[in-house]
Amino acid sequence: MTWPAPASIGMRLDEVDTPALIVELDAFEYNLQLLMDAARAAGVRVRPHAKTHKCPAIARQQVALGAVGVCCQKVSEAEALVDGGIDDVLITNQIVGGQKAERLAALARRARIGVCVDHPLQVEQLALAVEAAQTGLDVYVELDVGQGRCGVGGAREALALVAQLQAQPLLRFAGFQAYHGRAQHLREPDERARAVRHAQDIVVKCLKEFEAAGIAVPCVTGAGTGTYRLEAASAVWNEIQPGSYIFMDADYGRNRLEPDAPRFRNSLYVLSTVISDAGGRLILDAGLKAYSVDSGFPHIPDAPGWQFAKASDEHGVLNPASAAPALPIAVGTKLQLIPGHCDPTVNLHDWFVGVRGGVVESLWPITARGAVF
Amino acid sequence: MTWPAPASIGMRLDEVDTPALIVELDAFEYNLQLLMDAARAAGVRVRPHAKTHKCPAIARQQVALGAVGVCCQKVSEAEALVDGGIDDVLITNQIVGGQKAERLAALARRARIGVCVDHPLQVEQLALAVEAAQTGLDVYVELDVGQGRCGVGGAREALALVAQLQAQPLLRFAGFQAYHGRAQHLREPDERARAVRHAQDIVVKCLKEFEAAGIAVPCVTGAGTGTYRLEAASAVWNEIQPGSYIFMDADYGRNRLEPDAPRFRNSLYVLSTVISDAGGRLILDAGLKAYSVDSGFPHIPDAPGWQFAKASDEHGVLNPASAAPALPIAVGTKLQLIPGHCDPTVNLHDWFVGVRGGVVESLWPITARGAVF
Repeated sequence: MTWPAPASIGMRLDEVDTPALIVELDAFEYNLQLLMDAARAAGVRVRPHAKTHKCPAIARQQVALGAVGVCCQKVSEAEALVDGGIDDVLITNQIVGGQKAERLAALARRARIGVCVDHPLQVEQLALAVEAAQTGLDVYVELDVGQGRCGVGGAREALALVAQLQAQPLLRFAGFQAYHGRAQHLREPDERARAVRHAQDIVVKCLKEFEAAGIAVPCVTGAGTGTYRLEAASAVWNEIQPGSYIFMDADYGRNRLEPDAPRFRNSLYVLSTVISDAGGRLILDAGLKAYSVDSGFPHIPDAPGWQFAKASDEHGVLNPASAAPALPIAVGTKLQLIPGHCDPTVNLHDWFVGVRGGVVESLWPITARGAVF
Repeated sequence: MTWPAPASIGMRLDEVDTPALIVELDAFEYNLQLLMDAARAAGVRVRPHAKTHKCPAIARQQVALGAVGVCCQKVSEAEALVDGGIDDVLITNQIVGGQKAERLAALARRARIGVCVDHPLQVEQLALAVEAAQTGLDVYVELDVGQGRCGVGGAREALALVAQLQAQPLLRFAGFQAYHGRAQHLREPDERARAVRHAQDIVVKCLKEFEAAGIAVPCVTGAGTGTYRLEAASAVWNEIQPGSYIFMDADYGRNRLEPDAPRFRNSLYVLSTVISDAGGRLILDAGLKAYSVDSGFPHIPDAPGWQFAKASDEHGVLNPASAAPALPIAVGTKLQLIPGHCDPTVNLHDWFVGVRGGVVESLWPITARGAVF
């Protein structure tokens, strides 16, 4: 069931029902443009990660500004994006299961679709599905470049998978997926630089072995919001996949930036109402079902002197911080909560409420919300 | 957008697409009955908390077994439950905001609706709304009995709110909401008993002062899965609100029970596929968007020797545990993940897939999924 939007166009922000997921459009558009300008200057393609927003209306804006297409993580997400008008989607993930492979092949008849592999079983299932659907598919071999999740360990395994692909005329070897997620959240610039250098060494080694084997690698794709400048400057990656840059979040706010780095602005927050001040606390109407806490509690810029003490299913609890006097805040006040982690927070909502100058300007449905399979 | 169910009736469990939210029906029905039998023996009414399941199909089963109605936390949840055929809903929460009060009053024309208050502003807004809608509403004064969230601190404030209520002919004082959420998760039986004794002392003190003031308290409602036997045996509470008992979760599994306590069975899990074994790890196709981690990682009963190392948006990572040899598990294997916390996990899914004897028997839509406002 999709809920009605918690706002209507033209409404003032203070009239929006809560909890609501707000996008400050000026900051959002600034971020969209800043990333594209940086990528253009560095000469790399941009394929933004749509798992952040799950929203074709946003994906279309990214493509309009020059993105070659988008990434996502799930077949169902890709379906929602193609349904929403995106015609080039890379699933930066491994697909296992006959039903999923069939859906992926069906989708590849409607749009350019890519997918990653790191195991022979995935290639076998994809081969059966594209043969049945008589459609081509771009297949990227994922390298583990330090993330410690999916990805083959080196060139030998990668070459074996490509040999398996080459026996399948409908599966095209499209390049390397080389994404280092952990590196995005290392706090210091030199830590991030070291991590990306390590990733780069792994990619370069594989590229050399592929060259020696006479196999062209059309694309090296990867990178995220925390490190995209490093990969873009490397001359190894020719496509970057940042997602969070459009919104940012409290966790990314804890990264220390290089002095010359452009700063993305926070554009996303959950609007929440103070529903009680029982016992000298402030109780918010937004809890674990309105924002994720896997990367810590939300940041509350408008509540100086208050600290986030606890989140339960539908409540947030703020206590006075000991260090500073707490600003008096009345029951009924609406507060902005900048989530710890934007991606899983977005997945809890059905609508982005776009606001400019304190007035609701857009309502974008999050059509891939819950697209988990 | 509501996704199609990841299964169809009659399908074998091993054919269900993943991630999927599975309910083992035998265990689920055992739990439903066990709680009702215990409450009947203790002579208390049962008003199960529907925030756990967000599903009218389950609420109707609870009512069919004798529940007087259900609880929920949000006006939109109550709307979904009334739409689904439930005619008695208590919102165990404070409602602030004119739009919400109006929706609540509109709902109270279609069903018996209760709501909690702990601040004069809430009563003012409810009074305006029921006056405009010309409908009655049950209003419970919430007492803070140790939870440290909403709730007045004592009888003086409670009496002041009731005086405010009594000036409003359409607002009926219905009793005390006295819920101690933290007590549910204290690990030792004697800790839980102490916490409920403390809560009981607060309620009894208020009851005495209300008696002295000549004000009847029709109902004392509260209690959850971790302590319901204590409140039921107290002769103070006459209604209990357990929610998680139908499913249980890994966190409740960490409670040590009294030797004579009946044991609810785990009936809920996320079915997930192993999509990669890169680097000797097992990578699952279910992450932060398929289960919540606010109460820890999922428990994986079918993967002895493996430990949950990390969850990212769409992946879970299992590493071999050092202590025991890890069971070899092939890519493509489907594993059961018992979530750390059932309520926010359910909120990530659109369907319960009911399974009995390894065959899909029911598909129940989670119509209050995302009902956050």
